[in-house]
Amino acid sequence: MTKLWGGRFEKHPEEWVDEFGASIGFDQKLAVVDITGSLAHAKMLLQCGILSIEEHSLIQTGLLVLKERAEKQQLEFKTEYEDIHLNIEKLLIDEIGPLGGKLHTARSRNDQVATDLHLHVKEETLSTISHISSLQATLLELAKSNVETILPGYTHLQRAQPVSFAHHVMAYFWMLQRDKERFSDSLKRTDMSPLGAGALAGTTFPIDRNLTKEELGFSKVYPNSLDAVSDRDFAIEYCSNAAITMMHLSRFCEELILWSSQEFQFVEISDSYSTGSSMMPQKKNPDMAELIRGKSGRVYGSLVHLLTVMKGLPLAYNKDMQEDKEPVFDTIETIKGCLSIFNGMMKEIKINDIKMMEAVRKDYSNATELADYLAKKGMPFREAHEVTGKIVFACIQKGIYLLDVPLDEYRSYSMLFEEDVYHDLLPETAVEKRNSEGGTGFEAVQSQLALAEETLFELPKI
Amino acid sequence: MTKLWGGRFEKHPEEWVDEFGASIGFDQKLAVVDITGSLAHAKMLLQCGILSIEEHSLIQTGLLVLKERAEKQQLEFKTEYEDIHLNIEKLLIDEIGPLGGKLHTARSRNDQVATDLHLHVKEETLSTISHISSLQATLLELAKSNVETILPGYTHLQRAQPVSFAHHVMAYFWMLQRDKERFSDSLKRTDMSPLGAGALAGTTFPIDRNLTKEELGFSKVYPNSLDAVSDRDFAIEYCSNAAITMMHLSRFCEELILWSSQEFQFVEISDSYSTGSSMMPQKKNPDMAELIRGKSGRVYGSLVHLLTVMKGLPLAYNKDMQEDKEPVFDTIETIKGCLSIFNGMMKEIKINDIKMMEAVRKDYSNATELADYLAKKGMPFREAHEVTGKIVFACIQKGIYLLDVPLDEYRSYSMLFEEDVYHDLLPETAVEKRNSEGGTGFEAVQSQLALAEETLFELPKI
Amino acid sequence: MTKLWGGRFEKHPEEWVDEFGASIGFDQKLAVVDITGSLAHAKMLLQCGILSIEEHSLIQTGLLVLKERAEKQQLEFKTEYEDIHLNIEKLLIDEIGPLGGKLHTARSRNDQVATDLHLHVKEETLSTISHISSLQATLLELAKSNVETILPGYTHLQRAQPVSFAHHVMAYFWMLQRDKERFSDSLKRTDMSPLGAGALAGTTFPIDRNLTKEELGFSKVYPNSLDAVSDRDFAIEYCSNAAITMMHLSRFCEELILWSSQEFQFVEISDSYSTGSSMMPQKKNPDMAELIRGKSGRVYGSLVHLLTVMKGLPLAYNKDMQEDKEPVFDTIETIKGCLSIFNGMMKEIKINDIKMMEAVRKDYSNATELADYLAKKGMPFREAHEVTGKIVFACIQKGIYLLDVPLDEYRSYSMLFEEDVYHDLLPETAVEKRNSEGGTGFEAVQSQLALAEETLFELPKI
Amino acid sequence: MTKLWGGRFEKHPEEWVDEFGASIGFDQKLAVVDITGSLAHAKMLLQCGILSIEEHSLIQTGLLVLKERAEKQQLEFKTEYEDIHLNIEKLLIDEIGPLGGKLHTARSRNDQVATDLHLHVKEETLSTISHISSLQATLLELAKSNVETILPGYTHLQRAQPVSFAHHVMAYFWMLQRDKERFSDSLKRTDMSPLGAGALAGTTFPIDRNLTKEELGFSKVYPNSLDAVSDRDFAIEYCSNAAITMMHLSRFCEELILWSSQEFQFVEISDSYSTGSSMMPQKKNPDMAELIRGKSGRVYGSLVHLLTVMKGLPLAYNKDMQEDKEPVFDTIETIKGCLSIFNGMMKEIKINDIKMMEAVRKDYSNATELADYLAKKGMPFREAHEVTGKIVFACIQKGIYLLDVPLDEYRSYSMLFEEDVYHDLLPETAVEKRNSEGGTGFEAVQSQLALAEETLFELPKI
Repeated sequence: MTKLWGGRFEKHPEEWVDEFGASIGFDQKLAVVDITGSLAHAKMLLQCGILSIEEHSLIQTGLLVLKERAEKQQLEFKTEYEDIHLNIEKLLIDEIGPLGGKLHTARSRNDQVATDLHLHVKEETLSTISHISSLQATLLELAKSNVETILPGYTHLQRAQPVSFAHHVMAYFWMLQRDKERFSDSLKRTDMSPLGAGALAGTTFPIDRNLTKEELGFSKVYPNSLDAVSDRDFAIEYCSNAAITMMHLSRFCEELILWSSQEFQFVEISDSYSTGSSMMPQKKNPDMAELIRGKSGRVYGSLVHLLTVMKGLPLAYNKDMQEDKEPVFDTIETIKGCLSIFNGMMKEIKINDIKMMEAVRKDYSNATELADYLAKKGMPFREAHEVTGKIVFACIQKGIYLLDVPLDEYRSYSMLFEEDVYHDLLPETAVEKRNSEGGTGFEAVQSQLALAEETLFELPKI
Repeated sequence: MTKLWGGRFEKHPEEWVDEFGASIGFDQKLAVVDITGSLAHAKMLLQCGILSIEEHSLIQTGLLVLKERAEKQQLEFKTEYEDIHLNIEKLLIDEIGPLGGKLHTARSRNDQVATDLHLHVKEETLSTISHISSLQATLLELAKSNVETILPGYTHLQRAQPVSFAHHVMAYFWMLQRDKERFSDSLKRTDMSPLGAGALAGTTFPIDRNLTKEELGFSKVYPNSLDAVSDRDFAIEYCSNAAITMMHLSRFCEELILWSSQEFQFVEISDSYSTGSSMMPQKKNPDMAELIRGKSGRVYGSLVHLLTVMKGLPLAYNKDMQEDKEPVFDTIETIKGCLSIFNGMMKEIKINDIKMMEAVRKDYSNATELADYLAKKGMPFREAHEVTGKIVFACIQKGIYLLDVPLDEYRSYSMLFEEDVYHDLLPETAVEKRNSEGGTGFEAVQSQLALAEETLFELPKI
Repeated sequence: MTKLWGGRFEKHPEEWVDEFGASIGFDQKLAVVDITGSLAHAKMLLQCGILSIEEHSLIQTGLLVLKERAEKQQLEFKTEYEDIHLNIEKLLIDEIGPLGGKLHTARSRNDQVATDLHLHVKEETLSTISHISSLQATLLELAKSNVETILPGYTHLQRAQPVSFAHHVMAYFWMLQRDKERFSDSLKRTDMSPLGAGALAGTTFPIDRNLTKEELGFSKVYPNSLDAVSDRDFAIEYCSNAAITMMHLSRFCEELILWSSQEFQFVEISDSYSTGSSMMPQKKNPDMAELIRGKSGRVYGSLVHLLTVMKGLPLAYNKDMQEDKEPVFDTIETIKGCLSIFNGMMKEIKINDIKMMEAVRKDYSNATELADYLAKKGMPFREAHEVTGKIVFACIQKGIYLLDVPLDEYRSYSMLFEEDVYHDLLPETAVEKRNSEGGTGFEAVQSQLALAEETLFELPKI
Repeated sequence: MTKLWGGRFEKHPEEWVDEFGASIGFDQKLAVVDITGSLAHAKMLLQCGILSIEEHSLIQTGLLVLKERAEKQQLEFKTEYEDIHLNIEKLLIDEIGPLGGKLHTARSRNDQVATDLHLHVKEETLSTISHISSLQATLLELAKSNVETILPGYTHLQRAQPVSFAHHVMAYFWMLQRDKERFSDSLKRTDMSPLGAGALAGTTFPIDRNLTKEELGFSKVYPNSLDAVSDRDFAIEYCSNAAITMMHLSRFCEELILWSSQEFQFVEISDSYSTGSSMMPQKKNPDMAELIRGKSGRVYGSLVHLLTVMKGLPLAYNKDMQEDKEPVFDTIETIKGCLSIFNGMMKEIKINDIKMMEAVRKDYSNATELADYLAKKGMPFREAHEVTGKIVFACIQKGIYLLDVPLDEYRSYSMLFEEDVYHDLLPETAVEKRNSEGGTGFEAVQSQLALAEETLFELPKI
């Protein structure tokens, strides 16, 4: 068969080269948005007098037939027509005859593919935002039921200070909130219409880019045609936003894996989200948490992929840019899958508050309380810190905890110590009293939860 | 000497381990913001009744002395005090005695370093935005003087359609505009105060985080202390924004390098931004353009650096996070340097409009005009395209251009051809007529310039 | 249905989690090597007395049936059986009954998947090496026919010194030679058998790992079972080797794209490896070269993907490691595809020696000859360089070339100039005389070609 | 002052551009190898009759003076002389007069910098290999003293099967062994002389590249001058090798951090390699392990940096390549520092064998033994696995371990159970019996240690 652009060529390209160069294997994911874009373009051509009413009517009918089939995944694509645009043009011509070719007037594959990708990434950004919100809602519920559940807070994976489990979970709520903001922000640069930019320079036809923009629900048109066809920033932004979100999930997964270990036993992940081992039947592996942690690599890789592709490319379109789709598609599927699975996993997770409390009681994470106690009684902080260090050291030598030290021994270190020190050393007190804004104190956590509730139901402005 | 946190330790750490673990070698860049943060913290401690008026007055005086010295780069730092925070605390104690230690009440190095980094990245984000604006202003000037300068527009590095040089330059203006927007967006997440989050859990002292927030000019406080101390999103965002900006610059640099070659000769880069060769005295190498192109790798690398560091880290602070500063500092310095150099280079660049026009005249980039001509006369676009292909092919065989084909030969291909085809085939016409919005037509470019002018002087909203 | 490892579990995992966690979607590529591994394992179990002759005979027959079907792509896999190992075990049990389950004695999926991946990467490494050799052979042929074809050599994309086209092409030959060496080197670490490592600790069954090693054609067994199941270095090495090879191809592609431009016109890429444009019929785009250049991003991304996955994973197997296969498979397919396409493209490339020579004649790339001329007559090099610079500068001002400068003008710069300077300034002379080893002189190039021929047919030692 | 290459230039480059373009800030690290290279070059020029005996003698004396100063870090470098080569040339001219300029005959900065980098990376590769060997020796010692120390082996961070601590440590020994092999392999491609390649095309002077090669201790000369000056593969290889090594260290660090936690308590890191907290005096943070884990990001970043710089660069030298040095230098320093610190840390680490054994006793990691027990008595493996799963499940319900189950209860599951099952269930037995090659059985581990000892003292062949 003749390639649609083949007039000038003497030799017939070999088939395997065709296959290597063809994008239809992956860009068929854009079938529906491609037709949506064509419907808008056709309507504009009519309104601008470039298509007659009859021509438009025929083309529109043909496109609607194809769109229905596309939605049902019933279109058949061929490698010989290279990409989604030429495949659909061919199908349209099969449907309505050579008039189908007229649809491409005042348009190029360069602005067409950019339009498709904008429509797709916009849609998926909104969907990603909604996936994040669902996970946030789950975390908020989990936090609400666990305000007074106390576990050790860690730094350097060493027990540092006891914290409310709700507080710990809410740390991730706010990370996800930033992730959502970031996707909303990038949406501004995704929600723009490149249609009408032509191959690179605009067109001599009397088109109206604002008509297609409106029709497709975009907020703005690109002010420069060269930029419109060669910009892939919005795809990179989607990937860099996703990389940060995956980093957040990888941190939470790391914690869930630690907490599920026999050493911690702070949580139990539901059987639905765990698997067994073929050789060790007692195992209950936190597979989903591990897999999500691992998938951060995948998304980081796609970001590097895209950034590398775009490095040093002269204007305007270059074939290298065909490599833009797969990393974006893969990232969309990965992050949405991870958010869903993670959400399901958190909905069914079992909190082992007894083990958490046991961990809190058997350590020196109330040492800060001791230092603060002294500081409040007037000792300079660094000195209070030094004294506390000595007391803890003595305890470790004797194998006892701070609550076990008799008062007169305390007073041998400093006469500032009094009976009330024991109250301050209780983990509940330690948590309860940290009511500085954003702190782990129960009241502070309640305020935080209220703020989160408000924030969660704010709509992203697009 | 005794480490400030050394009470508990039996052995004296060997010196080389200290050096390996110390951050003072690079975090001294934060000296001024660290003191600024301490001044705000001290003031808050006074207002909340934690410091007496006398104590505050002494501490404040000491800090102001140090700040002045810091601004003059006169502070001396020592590896034995590990990091900028302990170094400054030590200097303060040297200055005002043990009371200096009291400044650290209700604060931890964890929230302190996060505060410093927020202050620094915020400041540098604003500075980066202003560097981008300067470059945009230069490009706008260059565009204004070159609306009617015509050069070939390329796709696949093949001449495609003639475009206005102003239009080409403006493509980069809009990329930079998106870059600026992106930095403005990430500023929202940088412009937040972690101060008061303590080590991880908040504090039992009756502090007021809003006082320090106001004092330091931040817009919000972090709603969760665990998140406040373990969040480095804002640093990653700076780097990912910078990576996209560097990608844009790498593309423009690639073009400048091409255009400076003997094959293109479209521009001449000023001697100040070129260098010679030790062995080939005729060479005038576009060194600065190459170096900037290469520095995209540096910034991509820093982004990967940071994302890798944060992958899979449990909450809250981990020492791995000490690795956050160098990639951010390096990225800031790199991108600002590149923007400045690029700006200077563009200010002095010489446009060779004659060579550009010669290139336009000697090619088939007016083929689209021929196809459009036929399409406008009613031929379906795909057919017009096919016919044009055949004509171009015949020309190539004969070694002539489209303007050289006699009318009757044209009419042997299609009777739709008439005398006016020659007017349409002139490059000036080709450019002039592409007045679709955002197109390269002179009028369209003038509108674009007007829009750019408006946009440029809009203030970023913070 | 019951999961094979499901004895311990109370709840039935939901289907979508299964799908998310399943690897059968991509690890089915390992079907044949998985069965090969099982055949070897079964034979060893027989020889070690763990399987009876009858048991082995039944299992072997069953496996051979499955292998034949696998080779014809006739096996049907199901997501519910998660991965290739459990799918094949299920198919075997369907074929020969419950005895099929006995095959897994003294083996775990952990050592099994590692074995499969080693077999696959080993096979593909050899295949990659052979792809590289084919491309080298093509380049060698191209070089042989173009020893005396002269083109400008560039530094900074500025014409520097004329070089033989053969010499230029051979630069890539040697890069590919290093690539091949690198793949051969990594083969040593791929060609090792993890089989028999069990889940992580070895096995209590009296197995003989050397039997399976021999049977599978591996050179060594892993000396440590924990390492054997958790090592993915060989996969990362494949990807890092591929990244360097793709970097080399990206450089050659960049040059081909430049050389195909109307500005250079040094080569013409065959129609089979180019494509046209839907809107600009005169275009002949070097699509394949661009696509290969772009695919460097893909391979870089996969390398980052794998490195990120493995960062910070504790021993031994973690589910994160399931993410190892897709980047390796994709990299294998990408690099082999790129090498094939590039090879085909180079076989059909047309060298435009006239345009190359024209470029050489019209520049100052013989300036080095002038400097060398003076140096050889005794002027210190730096002075000769300075004088040459002045002469070139004067020429540029007048718009003439070095061969156009009259002798007495030369002598006004230095009395060392004599009539023979004009001979030295001819491009042919410039090339011809650079006969230092590895230089571009015709003789030196011939020696280089001889060396290449020898090297090419050396067998990689495995 | 006049730039050495400045003859042709009209304008004086502004200072800040100079600074931006200068590499002397970092390439001064190459001072000694640069002079070493010059000494060899000078000697060769003498032997080839290009320098007279007197000239050579003067130049040699001057270079030796500079070399001594360089070794004592007493040379003063200036940004105005851009890079290390021009700085040293200037210093030489200051020392011996204009004759110093003659040293550059038949050489270019392009082959000179490549030579310097080869010398440097070669030296550092050998040094890196020796650092790895030292760490391996430490691990071997640690393993030797801990053959019968038993700890849980983990998969998915779930206790899987008990293993010998020696075995666990040795897993890292073999990873490091591969790392060493990889550095040895890349050495072949580093140990090559580019000197004599000139700017890109070789030289017309009658030089002898084998003389400088011998003098500098290289094994081979580059067979192609274009490749010689534009190859940075060896630098990328250093970085990719380092990335894999750092990945290994990050895994070991992760384990040390886990093992140091209060939940595990398997090891105690020496005070010298830990630090305290400014607010929590009881903390003993595994700072060095965390920092090394974090530094994997740094090295990954440098690899991406270099790969990105080289992507799509046309031959031969481009200024982008100046960006090659910093990532390599930083990677060298990082990996050597990490290996040293890690080595020191492992030398002083305290193994808590009691806690390890406690962990082993209180879990179901002997479940595999039960399944193997049944399988050896003739039950098909999958069935044995199923039965074991049921028994473990019943135990978990009752809160008992496998050793606590009475024999008649066992026999209610299968009549294959007999008294000897209890022996098999002991952790010591479980470890002891895994004597398959490379397994964790004590004998197998002893053989492994013997093999390691042999391997460690093999010399890398260069």
